[in-house]
Amino acid sequence: MAKLTSRSEDYSKWYNELVVKADLAENSGVRGCMVIKPYGYAIWEKMRDEMDKKFKETGHVNAYFPLFVPKSLFEAEEKNAEGFAKECAVVTHYRLKTDPDNPSKLIVDPDAKLEEELIVRPTSEAIIWNTYKNWIQSYRDLPILINQWANVVRWEMRTRLFLRTAEFLWQEGHTAHATKDEAVEEAEKMNKVYADFAENFMAMPVIQGLKTPSERFAGADETYCIEALMQDGKALQAGTSHFLGQNFAKAFDVKFTNKEGKIEHAWATSWGTSTRLMGALIMTHSDDFGLVLPPTLAPIQVVIVPIFKGEEQLEQISEVALDIQAKLRAKGISVKFDNDTQNKPGWKFAEYELKGVPVRIAMGPRDLENKSVEIARRDNLTKEVCSIEGLDSYIEELLKTIQQDLYNKASEFRKDNMTKVDTYEEFKKVLEEKGGFIYAHWDGTAEEEEQIKDETKATIRCIPLDDDIEEGISLISGKPSKRRVLFAKAY
Amino acid sequence: MAKLTSRSEDYSKWYNELVVKADLAENSGVRGCMVIKPYGYAIWEKMRDEMDKKFKETGHVNAYFPLFVPKSLFEAEEKNAEGFAKECAVVTHYRLKTDPDNPSKLIVDPDAKLEEELIVRPTSEAIIWNTYKNWIQSYRDLPILINQWANVVRWEMRTRLFLRTAEFLWQEGHTAHATKDEAVEEAEKMNKVYADFAENFMAMPVIQGLKTPSERFAGADETYCIEALMQDGKALQAGTSHFLGQNFAKAFDVKFTNKEGKIEHAWATSWGTSTRLMGALIMTHSDDFGLVLPPTLAPIQVVIVPIFKGEEQLEQISEVALDIQAKLRAKGISVKFDNDTQNKPGWKFAEYELKGVPVRIAMGPRDLENKSVEIARRDNLTKEVCSIEGLDSYIEELLKTIQQDLYNKASEFRKDNMTKVDTYEEFKKVLEEKGGFIYAHWDGTAEEEEQIKDETKATIRCIPLDDDIEEGISLISGKPSKRRVLFAKAY
Repeated sequence: MAKLTSRSEDYSKWYNELVVKADLAENSGVRGCMVIKPYGYAIWEKMRDEMDKKFKETGHVNAYFPLFVPKSLFEAEEKNAEGFAKECAVVTHYRLKTDPDNPSKLIVDPDAKLEEELIVRPTSEAIIWNTYKNWIQSYRDLPILINQWANVVRWEMRTRLFLRTAEFLWQEGHTAHATKDEAVEEAEKMNKVYADFAENFMAMPVIQGLKTPSERFAGADETYCIEALMQDGKALQAGTSHFLGQNFAKAFDVKFTNKEGKIEHAWATSWGTSTRLMGALIMTHSDDFGLVLPPTLAPIQVVIVPIFKGEEQLEQISEVALDIQAKLRAKGISVKFDNDTQNKPGWKFAEYELKGVPVRIAMGPRDLENKSVEIARRDNLTKEVCSIEGLDSYIEELLKTIQQDLYNKASEFRKDNMTKVDTYEEFKKVLEEKGGFIYAHWDGTAEEEEQIKDETKATIRCIPLDDDIEEGISLISGKPSKRRVLFAKAY
Repeated sequence: MAKLTSRSEDYSKWYNELVVKADLAENSGVRGCMVIKPYGYAIWEKMRDEMDKKFKETGHVNAYFPLFVPKSLFEAEEKNAEGFAKECAVVTHYRLKTDPDNPSKLIVDPDAKLEEELIVRPTSEAIIWNTYKNWIQSYRDLPILINQWANVVRWEMRTRLFLRTAEFLWQEGHTAHATKDEAVEEAEKMNKVYADFAENFMAMPVIQGLKTPSERFAGADETYCIEALMQDGKALQAGTSHFLGQNFAKAFDVKFTNKEGKIEHAWATSWGTSTRLMGALIMTHSDDFGLVLPPTLAPIQVVIVPIFKGEEQLEQISEVALDIQAKLRAKGISVKFDNDTQNKPGWKFAEYELKGVPVRIAMGPRDLENKSVEIARRDNLTKEVCSIEGLDSYIEELLKTIQQDLYNKASEFRKDNMTKVDTYEEFKKVLEEKGGFIYAHWDGTAEEEEQIKDETKATIRCIPLDDDIEEGISLISGKPSKRRVLFAKAY
């Protein structure tokens, strides 16, 4: 197996190679669309299941809405339409026919043109609010707390596996409320759910904040987000939650009678995370040897590799290994005993390192004699010899330790790559030399934001929601600023 | 709540009303596409989770492939292309722009025409086998045992909620094997998995069989299927499993080196079930009062309805009800305590009957005095008074009984509507007067099959795989037949 390009050599290449070599995903025969391979999909399933649980615990239910949005609905909410019109796949026909000039080929049947074009959903506010119109008459019908797991399509010109693909998998929550306060509370709550998921399940620290007006979702009054820091010093937006005001209710005429008997438009939120999280996961924890997975997300948490010569030794080791496997499984730990006889232990070690299996147990004849095994941690590449007795409990604890250590390591990295700057010169210098999150003062105008973006490629990732308030003067205009905002170059 | 149309009055209308009134699904603003509402989706989730478990237990893993199939790939396997070309949604453009004549409208941007049209997948053999080409070099790469949960689009002209929709949700297994025998075995195995799921989870008896050549999946060498009988005497194909031979391997040039060092094409299967199963579920068990759900599939298995006057009574009842709820939940039973004070008990009774909640517990002040409750079964509409003591164990058993009784009832119905006939006259008479499954002799030709279909609208649902072999002479041609085949009108 050829070694990965190292991160220091070419970070971008390292990422692309890793995604493919660790069997997570690959490019497909369709421009910009990826194939999510079984190993990658198994990780995504774990993300999905955990988020789904959190959504249900917070009172949400799942539903499914059409893949297609008729053009007339698509254009109903003006800002939303404008935001997505430039990158949407359009269905215009509903039939192919045999090419009269070449009977082995098919052509689009010109007689099967749709009366109205259908847009493949880039996001589902339009189709969903067109449906909610029929579901909402009275305040008693509210709130509606629905989530959808689906595929969406955005015709991006430059794509990268997981990070930016023409088609991706995601969840999109779409809620309707009787009051503005309730909708704002929902948007905030779901952003916190995302933060909790990112930190406690993905072991990925995030900054919670608000987007600036120019970075908001098309059609939103306010966009909350979680921003993570990747190992190359670039930011990655890992989830967003939007307070949509009454924009979609007005566009789709969704009115209800409130408690006071007055008719008003409903209030909306939407919130989403996607397979982009796979990219975030990879770039937060992995190293030059391959994937590093937090135990919560590892399809295989523990691998047992026997070191043996000949069948007899393998049999002796197998007996003990299968017993260990059974005990670990009884604790809900996923274990693979790799008794394949084709590949050498060294090959297996490299393979499971590449795949990010958190704990490797190696055992040979001498280990058996000593009633011990060798345990290797994937996260910090340390090894130790452990007694077989009580191994299951030891590993159960070890997995928790690894999960916490990964979070701590990522937090340390972020701390080391978070800089407060007070001048534009310093800003550019830090950005150039170090990257990372830069906390700086901004005057609140789109002009200053735009100028900084044009000149440095750094954007305001968010206006953090934490309590770290500190007044100052803005980077370029020198106008007063009430708090620092978070800048970074971003994926 | 207006009553449902009865089945005897208008079966088709009953079905359509039930789907909507029980909050399972509704038509959307997109022609032929449905919205699966939360209650319906919750049932589908249970089907999905159970099938997913069964697929994983039989060694399969999930993955995800692109939504789009480039036209050149779509047409590669000729029969498959021919089968789906007439009903596929075609993406031709990737951008909209502002209408110069009307700036509030969008039009398809003629400058954003795709070089090659993309077909929205009606099924994924083409895109998947184009991918497998790169995954399969040696017999060591085989078998590949992959399943995908996805949405697909077939531009059906006449649609009905769940039964036939332009977009539907499904799973599609796509496997590759080194030998023909292994692929045939896989196709047979998965058909059995479907049968097991249908019978033991959906409480829906099915006939397992083989499709005739004219009813096969486009591109298959053999199609296995499970056929269920609906209450109106029509058949419903509930799942299919295809042995694809080397057709797709040849079309996509998927070759491997076998154990003997020879190069050959891989062998394939594919198998699928869809949200159509929701229609099968409804039409197998439900009645004129609404949905009837087997406990395995009920989002709410038990509802507790308090009968009370005034707050004090409600409080007294609540105390006991919440205790019962806790005990049932501890047994893994999903329970809703409906303490809503707006709706009367009678309204609630009707509502939960409509929604198919398997067990209803009603309790009023007198029940409390007697330390008993009233239990109503949704399936057979019987009621009984039960002691509160030991109620959790009693209900746990009752749910199992209901599950079994539903299966038995459906089996009885099928037995009563399964007729062996020996002449074409008799065939037509039974079909007209009674419908149901008709076992008759067929000469094995497409001509006879076609004639029967044209004249009676009945099709050969399958050549059963059971041991009930009985020779005879065919209905029309009078030629010898080795066994009866299964005829029916079908959904």
